[in-house]
Amino acid sequence: MCQLLGMNCNVPTDICFSFAGFQARGGVTDVHADGWGIAFFEGRGTRVFLDPQPSSVSPVAELVRNYPIHSMNVVAHIRKATQGVVALENTHPFMRELWGRYWIFAHNGNLPDFSPELDGSFTPVGQTDSERAFCWLLQTLRQRFGSRPPTQPRLFELLHQLTVEVGQRGAFNYLLSNGDCLFAHCSTQLTYIVRQAPFAVAHLRDQDLSIDFSAVTTVADRVAVIATVPLTDNETWTVMDSGSLWLFEEGAPVRHQTTVAGPQQPSPADCASTLA
Amino acid sequence: MCQLLGMNCNVPTDICFSFAGFQARGGVTDVHADGWGIAFFEGRGTRVFLDPQPSSVSPVAELVRNYPIHSMNVVAHIRKATQGVVALENTHPFMRELWGRYWIFAHNGNLPDFSPELDGSFTPVGQTDSERAFCWLLQTLRQRFGSRPPTQPRLFELLHQLTVEVGQRGAFNYLLSNGDCLFAHCSTQLTYIVRQAPFAVAHLRDQDLSIDFSAVTTVADRVAVIATVPLTDNETWTVMDSGSLWLFEEGAPVRHQTTVAGPQQPSPADCASTLA
Repeated sequence: MCQLLGMNCNVPTDICFSFAGFQARGGVTDVHADGWGIAFFEGRGTRVFLDPQPSSVSPVAELVRNYPIHSMNVVAHIRKATQGVVALENTHPFMRELWGRYWIFAHNGNLPDFSPELDGSFTPVGQTDSERAFCWLLQTLRQRFGSRPPTQPRLFELLHQLTVEVGQRGAFNYLLSNGDCLFAHCSTQLTYIVRQAPFAVAHLRDQDLSIDFSAVTTVADRVAVIATVPLTDNETWTVMDSGSLWLFEEGAPVRHQTTVAGPQQPSPADCASTLA
Repeated sequence: MCQLLGMNCNVPTDICFSFAGFQARGGVTDVHADGWGIAFFEGRGTRVFLDPQPSSVSPVAELVRNYPIHSMNVVAHIRKATQGVVALENTHPFMRELWGRYWIFAHNGNLPDFSPELDGSFTPVGQTDSERAFCWLLQTLRQRFGSRPPTQPRLFELLHQLTVEVGQRGAFNYLLSNGDCLFAHCSTQLTYIVRQAPFAVAHLRDQDLSIDFSAVTTVADRVAVIATVPLTDNETWTVMDSGSLWLFEEGAPVRHQTTVAGPQQPSPADCASTLA
């Protein structure tokens, strides 16, 4: 199984601390050593760093860990190959353009029987089930909404329907962002935390590294971090329900919906981070 | 005016030497300081490194210079902004997917009056004339050839027609690659060199750095390097004719056509590099 890491903020923020723990999972504290990647939105632009070698020994990962790129939406992935060889073209996250915005997608899971018909508007370059699902999602969004983007509630609603459909074919944990917001789907395993004032010290699970967020933030800052498994061992992370799709904006979950229930607004308890 | 750098090889090759000279043009030996970018094809995959800050001081450029990524097709660009603010979304090269392959595009020039109708299949994310022209090129290729790629001669022929059309609106030097081959169009200024056995020592123009290619190559290697202005001062570079479109494959020009003349096979003299 792969590892996902996402970040959504209300102010451009660097992900160096979280990435330090995440990086270790690519070959040191975990076995996911079939490549890794990270995408940063900066305004409408994106920077995607990919490396088919393990993140724990990757020179590109060292750059990302030490070069503070400030972003409001980040999607990262460490790969444990299930479908498709270990190669650059199969390394997540994947990028396409739709409605004049870049869309970034990373998937954790396996969709052994998902072979939808693709019309050529978005075609996989590699061999993964993940890129195939991403192409089908974007193709269907464009088929339904044409050449102009819908309102966000309509986008969320259709994305939820499509996610349910794909999710019936296998494990479909994913992160998806267009730079304005971040969608997160928990099929089997995904957690999140919202960090906001009062900030405190956080300590990584994957290596002995701490940061005092109160020293590097303002009281207005808010950052949501989404990860397959919690990255810190002294904070309380919220475990997402299986089958739930979440929309993060400005550093907080603003909408979520599960496969069986109707739309819900998250309760305050869902959003609160306990800073030990 | 911007600076272009391209490489097309018959064996995966690193571009560290050429990039060292190119990098200096982004703020040291030249004034192009409005961002830079480089794309490497590795198999069907691509790695695109972008930085809106000058290449001469960019930490990402330092990584690229020192981390030998081996590629058979590379496209790089240093920007001098003409249209669009200095921002990541306006930083070349641009990437889109067509026919299940990534296409990479970088432009040097200015197209003040080029505002073609776009149908939404490829939409610019930024504000540059360059990205607009790239989207129009890909849209037209797909309109003409549908969901399957044409043969390379047919592709070259249509690309030449479209390039002539765009070139009437302004300066349109560009590099375009899908990972199999590299197209280069000289509108006002573009040069190339083919390095092959017997290899010799090359010395950069932009900084005092030499390399003995005979020590790092085999006799079968062949590398074409394309640049706005020659990168070395002890080799003979071929100046492309204004209005000529070139196709490079396996490290050599295999086809070129000018605006007024018919298709031509390059003469041996066109391909030979003089190794001083």
